[in-house]
Amino acid sequence: MNSMPVYINNRFVRNEEARLHISDLSMQRGYAVFDFFRTLDGRALFMNDHLDRFYSSAQALHLKIRQTREELSAVIHELIKQSGLPEVGIRLMLTGGYSSDSYKTADPNLVISCNPVTVAGNKDFEKGLSVITYNHQRELPHVKTINYQTALWLQPLLKEKQADDVLYYKDNFVTEFPRSNVFIVTREKKLITPAANMLYGITRKKVLSLAAEIMQVEEKPVTLIELMDADEVFLTSTTKKILPVIKINDRVISGGKPGGYTTMLYEKFLQLEKSSAHLVSL
Amino acid sequence: MNSMPVYINNRFVRNEEARLHISDLSMQRGYAVFDFFRTLDGRALFMNDHLDRFYSSAQALHLKIRQTREELSAVIHELIKQSGLPEVGIRLMLTGGYSSDSYKTADPNLVISCNPVTVAGNKDFEKGLSVITYNHQRELPHVKTINYQTALWLQPLLKEKQADDVLYYKDNFVTEFPRSNVFIVTREKKLITPAANMLYGITRKKVLSLAAEIMQVEEKPVTLIELMDADEVFLTSTTKKILPVIKINDRVISGGKPGGYTTMLYEKFLQLEKSSAHLVSL
Repeated sequence: MNSMPVYINNRFVRNEEARLHISDLSMQRGYAVFDFFRTLDGRALFMNDHLDRFYSSAQALHLKIRQTREELSAVIHELIKQSGLPEVGIRLMLTGGYSSDSYKTADPNLVISCNPVTVAGNKDFEKGLSVITYNHQRELPHVKTINYQTALWLQPLLKEKQADDVLYYKDNFVTEFPRSNVFIVTREKKLITPAANMLYGITRKKVLSLAAEIMQVEEKPVTLIELMDADEVFLTSTTKKILPVIKINDRVISGGKPGGYTTMLYEKFLQLEKSSAHLVSL
Repeated sequence: MNSMPVYINNRFVRNEEARLHISDLSMQRGYAVFDFFRTLDGRALFMNDHLDRFYSSAQALHLKIRQTREELSAVIHELIKQSGLPEVGIRLMLTGGYSSDSYKTADPNLVISCNPVTVAGNKDFEKGLSVITYNHQRELPHVKTINYQTALWLQPLLKEKQADDVLYYKDNFVTEFPRSNVFIVTREKKLITPAANMLYGITRKKVLSLAAEIMQVEEKPVTLIELMDADEVFLTSTTKKILPVIKINDRVISGGKPGGYTTMLYEKFLQLEKSSAHLVSL
């Protein structure tokens, strides 16, 4: 447990006091949404995109955020400042509240916390990821809820298979990783990423727009066969940035090393992060 | 919030102190199992069945309950005693624990709480339930996890449709209600209940064995058409006991009143509850 303060509803509390009563619907019924973003050089990365998604996730679960964006933003900047660290992760969570009957939603509880964050680096990029596929469709996939039940339940299987992550598919269509989006570069050098039944990642959005400058880009369904036949496969996420997938089940992808387009996009993305951090005015 | 003490890990705490740190995987990732049962005349109903299921749910999520059944049982009886009430609900929860990285499971947190409970009575039985069907399959359906995301998300729709509950189906097969099992009595007076893709309810199990004394009983898939064509439909749950379903979507079932077999089983079940409460030695 770190020692950074946590904001709960309307005040900062010490980390060890950052607790919710067991009647909260997150614990009673797994009912809560969240969002997560990082800082770079002490500056929040793509915070507006994350706040947009946080408000929209809350609305999707019929939960109301009482605070304005300006209020959330001020709290976030205070947490970043108090952390004294250049790179932290900010987590915003909104729960179904303290329910009187453990089923009906109540006044939502808002929790904003700041933690040291482990971010993928160049070594992780060079190494790439080995993944397995698994037949699963997340509930309410376009909403960033706290439900990662299947993902955590699969951890022993990943260990057994010596895989780094699991790629979900449904009805022969690839959708997403539990915490990352998937992209393929086809033999025709086209970049494709699924457009439905998955979470709209912020890194995904940034990469789509960077890629449009250098190649053909399409958001559309990706079959398992297209995935396995791809020249390059990579994932995107807030903490993983862009990581090449170099093995899927038993098949080696792109010769077992980062592909050319993946590398180009990775470099462009690192640049975007840097310039974003330095352009954002606090 | 009631004033009854709560048992957390290894000690009783006051209700207002029954809180978990936000790093717990129930709040971070919706990762936890639970079970719930009632008392009647101060006696725990079918506690052994519920404890069996609690241990088996924990195992399914790769979580270890450190306490023995005897220890849990002693805590439960102490909570019932301290409540001073003849009818309470006992909730056991085991979470993924305080995770260092909000993803890896840690030492599970065990929470045992005791609350006043609202139980269906004869008036609820006479009134019956109006329900709607909804295409949904719960994740890990045989495990009693805290994930009720879709169920809670559907509440506004239920209100709009003036329905009491939602009956899930998948691929044309009926599975379960979010918190109850479903039974049909066919025109041939056979009792059928789904056998897969649902939670094995304790009341379901008791009713199956009571029904076997008076009619033909089968556990097998039930199609939506069989459901709509049934003579009688009812649900079973710990707090609802047996409740007739008298309307599904726009179709009235069994003339809009409790059917004969449903009534017989209800009476047999109430007797079983009474005798169980009085046979169980504390």
